[in-house]
Amino acid sequence: MKENLTAFAPATVANLACGFDVMGLAIDNPGDEVTVSFNKSREIVVRSITGDGGKLSKDPMKNTASVAIQALCDDLHIDQGFDVSIKKKMPLGSGLGSSAASAVAGVFAANELLGRPFSRQELVPFAMMGEKMACGAAHADNVGPSMMGGIVLIRSYAPLDIISLPVPKKLCMVVVHPHVEVLTRDARAVIPQKIALEEGIAQWANTAALTAGLFQSNFDLIARSVEDHIAEPNRASLIPCFYEVKTAALYEGALACSISGSGPSIFAMCEGMASAKVVAAAMKSNLLKQKLKAMSIFPL
Amino acid sequence: MKENLTAFAPATVANLACGFDVMGLAIDNPGDEVTVSFNKSREIVVRSITGDGGKLSKDPMKNTASVAIQALCDDLHIDQGFDVSIKKKMPLGSGLGSSAASAVAGVFAANELLGRPFSRQELVPFAMMGEKMACGAAHADNVGPSMMGGIVLIRSYAPLDIISLPVPKKLCMVVVHPHVEVLTRDARAVIPQKIALEEGIAQWANTAALTAGLFQSNFDLIARSVEDHIAEPNRASLIPCFYEVKTAALYEGALACSISGSGPSIFAMCEGMASAKVVAAAMKSNLLKQKLKAMSIFPL
Repeated sequence: MKENLTAFAPATVANLACGFDVMGLAIDNPGDEVTVSFNKSREIVVRSITGDGGKLSKDPMKNTASVAIQALCDDLHIDQGFDVSIKKKMPLGSGLGSSAASAVAGVFAANELLGRPFSRQELVPFAMMGEKMACGAAHADNVGPSMMGGIVLIRSYAPLDIISLPVPKKLCMVVVHPHVEVLTRDARAVIPQKIALEEGIAQWANTAALTAGLFQSNFDLIARSVEDHIAEPNRASLIPCFYEVKTAALYEGALACSISGSGPSIFAMCEGMASAKVVAAAMKSNLLKQKLKAMSIFPL
Repeated sequence: MKENLTAFAPATVANLACGFDVMGLAIDNPGDEVTVSFNKSREIVVRSITGDGGKLSKDPMKNTASVAIQALCDDLHIDQGFDVSIKKKMPLGSGLGSSAASAVAGVFAANELLGRPFSRQELVPFAMMGEKMACGAAHADNVGPSMMGGIVLIRSYAPLDIISLPVPKKLCMVVVHPHVEVLTRDARAVIPQKIALEEGIAQWANTAALTAGLFQSNFDLIARSVEDHIAEPNRASLIPCFYEVKTAALYEGALACSISGSGPSIFAMCEGMASAKVVAAAMKSNLLKQKLKAMSIFPL
């Protein structure tokens, strides 16, 4: 029996524009590493956290990884103790699913140590409990893709219905992270609770079309479909440089460009790595022009 | 050169529940037959209409087939005259795209006679002009599938973007037509112009999931996805027996059941013909129990 195990869980881009609250995808990098080992205390102890700039709590009730592991233990009716060490290798509050990645890596590692009582998909609700603690809502659009990999669709929560969608071979993502703070709370608050019927119709036409585009590896169709009538028009103003960066990305040949999760990260979809590199450079140079202090770029 | 040509265009089921205003499919039967021939008058003349109970106008400005043919001639800048004869072989005002079928058959036949200057997809906007005259709005969710066949998604109107979706081999449709009158005007009026964000989210999760289900021939997923948060809850009350018929269909194993277009026809999706026949019988007997005078059943 293994005594400790380290798991990596990737960052994720939620929403994908038209798929507001229901779609997300995992990128290869960055992500979080969580090491889990058994202890004899019968309690879950967060031993160390690095890479968070001291911002995250070691209180096991307030840490997404430990909360997720606790949910797993509760479901199994066991009081096994765990030591948990977290290496944050991605920015916090960036709209890249940082809290989800820690929860996923933690619960995945604990499940392996316990002899894999649950499938990946069955682990998603436990990781969602970590999200709920961190964000106030048990969303799965970061947890789902971070756990399952690839592109996922969350059809419903009751019951939880997660569908893996195909990933076209040449699809590359560019993600830039402008160093401005966007609080998830604020990003949620700007979304109206009522939407015009015609905006809704456009949105569900696009989610269906994007899904078809992914199945057909039809990049033209993907480009036409990744369009957002709900979140982007309301959240763009929270990211000072958003439209400039988007225009630059599209000008350089990106298929589509929108806000990752609740922002401030901005993603671009590209066909092929060569295109992604050109687009990444354009987005980066545009952010510098806007005098935004720093950023990270993750072409995949 | 041929002197006359008869085209058949099928009835259609628009919306498919979650795909309100953006999805539709063609059924094998019933449909309309339109015969078109050249004349020397330079005008489009509606010579005869049968099967309409005298309800349709022969005024070429007020008939969907002739209006569609006129739109085609206008686009070609020709003043070719046509004689048009229409055999309605499906009920009017049934929510099965009767006006669309005549427009499609008419413009398709005229295009063939002229040596096929336009592709099928290019003919859709002309047939939409017929719809606009008949219904007040240039919708494509009946015209699109009647022209293209199979299941279609209308991603956008400006520009017109019609996507053919795969039809799983064993997918069968049952359509019953309760003989009650539902005016398209009334059916439109009951749909609110603002919808709750969470209803919208559920709707676009389902359109994406239905699309995935069609690509995967995944009947379980299709069954879970064909669910409507927008039209059905508001339109059900216009069809006295709707929920009884739906319950009967689902009880007998239908994958899903909802309103066809603006009603009153009700469709059920089934896996395989044997299931469709059982479901059709249950829906029919339920309508009779409700003392609804007559109906038509079209298992495919």
